[in-house]
Amino acid sequence: MTLIDGKAVSAQIKQEIAAEVEQIVAAGGKRPHLAAILVGHDGGSETYVANKVKACEACGFKSSLIRYEADITEDELLAKVEELNQDADVDGFIVQLPLPKHISEQKVIEAIDYRKDVDGFHPINVGRLVIGLPCYVSATPNGIIELLRRYNIKTSGKKCVVLGRSNIVGKPMATLMMQKANPGDATVTVCHSHSKDLKKECQEADIIIAAIGKPNFVTADMVKEGAVVIDVGTTRIPDATKKSGFRLNGDVKFDEVAPKCSFITPVPGGVGPMTIVSLMKNTLLAGKKAIYQ
Amino acid sequence: MTLIDGKAVSAQIKQEIAAEVEQIVAAGGKRPHLAAILVGHDGGSETYVANKVKACEACGFKSSLIRYEADITEDELLAKVEELNQDADVDGFIVQLPLPKHISEQKVIEAIDYRKDVDGFHPINVGRLVIGLPCYVSATPNGIIELLRRYNIKTSGKKCVVLGRSNIVGKPMATLMMQKANPGDATVTVCHSHSKDLKKECQEADIIIAAIGKPNFVTADMVKEGAVVIDVGTTRIPDATKKSGFRLNGDVKFDEVAPKCSFITPVPGGVGPMTIVSLMKNTLLAGKKAIYQ
Repeated sequence: MTLIDGKAVSAQIKQEIAAEVEQIVAAGGKRPHLAAILVGHDGGSETYVANKVKACEACGFKSSLIRYEADITEDELLAKVEELNQDADVDGFIVQLPLPKHISEQKVIEAIDYRKDVDGFHPINVGRLVIGLPCYVSATPNGIIELLRRYNIKTSGKKCVVLGRSNIVGKPMATLMMQKANPGDATVTVCHSHSKDLKKECQEADIIIAAIGKPNFVTADMVKEGAVVIDVGTTRIPDATKKSGFRLNGDVKFDEVAPKCSFITPVPGGVGPMTIVSLMKNTLLAGKKAIYQ
Repeated sequence: MTLIDGKAVSAQIKQEIAAEVEQIVAAGGKRPHLAAILVGHDGGSETYVANKVKACEACGFKSSLIRYEADITEDELLAKVEELNQDADVDGFIVQLPLPKHISEQKVIEAIDYRKDVDGFHPINVGRLVIGLPCYVSATPNGIIELLRRYNIKTSGKKCVVLGRSNIVGKPMATLMMQKANPGDATVTVCHSHSKDLKKECQEADIIIAAIGKPNFVTADMVKEGAVVIDVGTTRIPDATKKSGFRLNGDVKFDEVAPKCSFITPVPGGVGPMTIVSLMKNTLLAGKKAIYQ
């Protein structure tokens, strides 16, 4: 069993990005600039945004954090989005989700100029991903593809089961795994809350990508000997022994599943760091105007 | 075994559309107007476009057919697309594919104003379909969903295998079948040329949607007793006994598969007429500005 070390891979990619940024800057180019809007004080969001800012530093990016209280109106937020759309110094930006209930997340996502949408959530980027055109790929699926690539995990012709059909993980992940590409070319099955045959599908899978948000959902009896298991789950479980008061729990019952796997990602330290580094890669692409002018 | 009669269903939907159009016109509204651009003289394309024009008549739409010889330049075609984008009288338009090799189909598709893209091929419509937002849904998948709906075929929790991963059928079909919707909520597997386990996947499927473009590919041994089989294939096979000199052949070996099925679509007369009627439905939506302003 090989433990997929997302922390190490992401550290290496950040170094690669930082080296490229220094070359760009040395050649008189512009340092990529990522802006992040954070609304309210959700604990998870605070951590994610703090980690993104830290990753920007590691990559040599300029970063801006724009904070609002949870009572900001939708119009005020949309006005800020438009301001960032127009700001030539900002190469890409994100609005950290979730947003307070009185604000339409979809409206905000669609207000972002797709050329600065480094989260890859705008319909144009989603559509271009499906069609197979250059675009900002949603960060978590892109990070998983990068792990499969760097660990030389064969996907062509394999049976890949994706658990979960969310717009930011399940669906784009399924799309990437079925595309004519390497990694890709897999036979892809998407299971979700309505699936009757989920367990059987998993048992037959060469690759399981669990993004269903239920701690310890994937148990040993669901996994074939030699399978590759990618765990996207990051549920916060209260844990008094931790300084933060909680621990992160994946969708996979790691202790019993890991011995059966050829490859498996841990939680934390697997997919999580790759998600952030994928955002950094999109920001670098934005800074270079590599996808859109 | 129930034969799914796409011809009858499509005739009924055309009547429904025509009735609605007459109401709109009687109320002083505008008659929906579909324009089609046809480049060259490909036999299949000629037939498709002729059938679309005929369907427009049946629905009470205004239609315009714009023809070019195969030597039209890409710039000339793009200029016409832009003209139709600007033409307030044209509610929706299509550029019949395939185009001659010297013209980029993708460039032409992306040049179409997504608000008039009644084929649903523009990245914005593709992306909105994935996200689950109102959009012009690609005609063939939409026609299949309509057949499933009108025949009350249960899809929730069922295992659905889509054969083929094309941008206009396989991928949007898979997306629709996995969405939180009815029809939808199926466990969806997409198989393609690289799939090693295609036969086994089919054998376990409650619903098979064959869009692989290989005549008689799906044989009886691949189909479970009681399965629903939807045949998207329309390969032209030379046939001297036909006036046209050819017959249409589906992806399914109909004679041996049909007896095992609970429902099956014939070729011709199954999915084909539904594809055209789906285009008509999108045109009606465009005329009513029901999706975009």
